[in-house]
Amino acid sequence: MKIEPNRQRVKDIRRRLREEGIDCLILTKAVDVTYVTAFGGEDSWAAITSNAVYLVTDSRYIEQAAKECVRTTLVQRKGPITEAAAQLIAKLKGVRTVAIDTSVSVAAFEALKKGLTARLKSVSGITEGLRCVKDATELARIKKAAALSAKALAKATTFFKPGICESELAGIVDLEIRRLGCKPGFETIVAFGPNASRPHHQPGPRKLRKTETILIDFGARFGGYTADITRCFVLGRPSAAYRRAYEVTARSQAAAIAAARAGARLRDVDEAARKVIRDSGLPVYGYGTGHGIGLEIHEDPFLRPESKGTLQAGQILTIEPGVYIPGKLGVRIEDDILITENGCKILTGACPHLQF
Amino acid sequence: MKIEPNRQRVKDIRRRLREEGIDCLILTKAVDVTYVTAFGGEDSWAAITSNAVYLVTDSRYIEQAAKECVRTTLVQRKGPITEAAAQLIAKLKGVRTVAIDTSVSVAAFEALKKGLTARLKSVSGITEGLRCVKDATELARIKKAAALSAKALAKATTFFKPGICESELAGIVDLEIRRLGCKPGFETIVAFGPNASRPHHQPGPRKLRKTETILIDFGARFGGYTADITRCFVLGRPSAAYRRAYEVTARSQAAAIAAARAGARLRDVDEAARKVIRDSGLPVYGYGTGHGIGLEIHEDPFLRPESKGTLQAGQILTIEPGVYIPGKLGVRIEDDILITENGCKILTGACPHLQF
Repeated sequence: MKIEPNRQRVKDIRRRLREEGIDCLILTKAVDVTYVTAFGGEDSWAAITSNAVYLVTDSRYIEQAAKECVRTTLVQRKGPITEAAAQLIAKLKGVRTVAIDTSVSVAAFEALKKGLTARLKSVSGITEGLRCVKDATELARIKKAAALSAKALAKATTFFKPGICESELAGIVDLEIRRLGCKPGFETIVAFGPNASRPHHQPGPRKLRKTETILIDFGARFGGYTADITRCFVLGRPSAAYRRAYEVTARSQAAAIAAARAGARLRDVDEAARKVIRDSGLPVYGYGTGHGIGLEIHEDPFLRPESKGTLQAGQILTIEPGVYIPGKLGVRIEDDILITENGCKILTGACPHLQF
Repeated sequence: MKIEPNRQRVKDIRRRLREEGIDCLILTKAVDVTYVTAFGGEDSWAAITSNAVYLVTDSRYIEQAAKECVRTTLVQRKGPITEAAAQLIAKLKGVRTVAIDTSVSVAAFEALKKGLTARLKSVSGITEGLRCVKDATELARIKKAAALSAKALAKATTFFKPGICESELAGIVDLEIRRLGCKPGFETIVAFGPNASRPHHQPGPRKLRKTETILIDFGARFGGYTADITRCFVLGRPSAAYRRAYEVTARSQAAAIAAARAGARLRDVDEAARKVIRDSGLPVYGYGTGHGIGLEIHEDPFLRPESKGTLQAGQILTIEPGVYIPGKLGVRIEDDILITENGCKILTGACPHLQF
C-alpha cells in the first residue's frame, strides 16, 4: 500500500536538524524510513540532508522503491548497508556532522563510524516527536483500518461456537481481515475464560465451552496504519463477577475518554481510568491505560502513571483499561480515539460490543 | 510452548566467557534469551555469570517466566530494563567486565553503561556460533514443524480455486497451521502468476485465474522453531517457459542438496545451485541459496557467493534456488535439510509438490 510522502514531514525534520547543527540525519527504523520516503519495504535506511532525501536499499527492493518513493534519490547497495551509507555520505558536500537514531544497533553504529570521516553522533526523539501528531492522510488510514477491523470482527463472531479453540479463532479473525484486502497489524490475541487474566495471553489449544467468555485483541493494518481494538463476548450466561468486572471496566474507560482532550496531562488521563477500578475495590491493571498508534502499534504518547507531558490535538491513541483476576477472569475494553481541542472522537465505535 | 533449557548451552557460553575474560554476559535478543533460559516472552534480558543465569523481566511476564525458566533466577523490574540490569550487576560479586551483544541498540547500551561501575563492552558471535548447530531437542522441533507445515499445506491446496485472492489464500494457509495447534513462523507469501517474480512479494488482491501458477512460501512454528518451505503449483496447463523454469530450479536444488555435507564450503554449495541455472541460460537469482533456520527464521549459516567457512554436522538450513523473470514468472523450490557427516537429510519431503 502506497503511503503518500509528505513535504511537511521532511521540512519539519530539516528545521530540527538546523537547530541541532546536524548536516545529515540517518534513519534506520523501517517505520521512520516509511514516514519520510513512503517506502514500505525493509532493510533500508533513509538519509536526510538540507537539500535531498536518499533511500539506501538493495536489489530485492529497488523495483518497489522506484514505485513508492517520491522526492527521494535511490541508492542501490551491493555490500553491507553501513558501507553503502558511508560511501554516500562521503560524496555529499558540506556534511560534517552526521546523526543516526539511537535505536540503531551498536554493531551498525560502530561499522558506520569506521567508514566515516564526518563526525557521527546518535540522536533520539526527532521522528517520534513528529509522528505522534497525525496528519489528514494518517487519520484517514487509521479510520479505514478501524472500519475494516469492525467488519472483520462482525464476521468472526459467527464462529463463536463451543469446541473452537483459541488459536483457530485467532486464525479466523486474521482470515476475515485478509478477506477485506488488508492484513493483521499485530498478533491477534484470543483468550477464553480465565486465560484472559493474562493481558499478553498467546492463543492456544483451549476449546470454547458452552458457557464461556471470549476476549479478542486485534486490528487490521491499512496503508501502513493499524487499528488496535479489544472486545469481550460471552457464550451463555456470564457470572456475576464477570458482569461486575465488565461494568467497572466500561466505566473506567468512559472516565478516561471523558478526561482526554488537548492539554490534558497524560498521567491525569491514566489516573481517571485507574481511579474507577481502584474505587470499585477490584485489582488495578499493571500496564498503561493507553498508547499512541500509527505506523507502530505502540508509539508516543503513552498514558502511564509516570508519564510526563500533555495530550496534543491530532494524536491518536488507545484507551484500554481492564480487570484481571488470575485464574478467574479477565476483561479489557479498548478503543482508539482522536484527540481534539475540546475532547476526543472515538474512531472504533462501529466495532461490535458485548451486550448483556 | 516450553523450550527445554539446556545445561550444555550455558556450559558452552561460560567456556567462551572464560576465554574472553568476561565476567557477565548480557543477552538482549529474545531468541538468545530463549536459547539459554527457555523463556518464550519478550522485553526481557538474560545475564550469565560463572555461577548463575538471571532473567530480568516485568510483571506482564513473571507468571510465564516462573513456568518456563529452569535453573534461572528471576529478577522483576519496575523501571527501565537497563536500570534493572545495572542494579543486578552491581550486586554481583567479582564482576569487573560485562559484555553485551552488539545487536543491542545504542540507546540501551549508553543507558546501561551510565548505570555500571564495571567495564562494559559489546561482543558478537557467541550465541550465533552455538545456535547454528542444533541439538536433539531442536532437531525434533524442526521436524515436527515441517510435518505440521506439510499437513497444513495439503489442506490449503483444496482452496486453489479461481477467484480466491492471494491475501485470502495466505490467510487460509495460516488458519490451517493454527488448526494444528501451532502458528505461522513468519509472514506467509502467496504469489499468483507473474507476481512470483518478486521473491519478497506481499500477498495482495490479485485473484487466481483458471490457468495460473501459485507460489507459497510459508512455515509452521513449533516449540519456538520454524520450518521454511516454498512450493509452486499450477491451475490448468502451465506454459512451456514455466515448465522449463521449474525443471531447471528442481535440478538446481538437487545439485545443492547433493553438494551439502559436513566440511563442504558454504560458497561451493551456493555455487552448485547457481551453476545449474547459469548453464541453462536462465537468469541467476539475486539472493543466497539458503540460510540456517532455528529460533530465528534467518540465522547462520548463510549460503552465498561471498560466504566464508564450511558446513557442520547438525546444522539445519534451507536450500531455495529459483528462477525469476520480471513480468512473466517466478519459481522457487525450498526445502529444509539437516547436515550430516556424509551428506544431508531432507526434513520437508512430506510437503506436497507440483506434479506436471
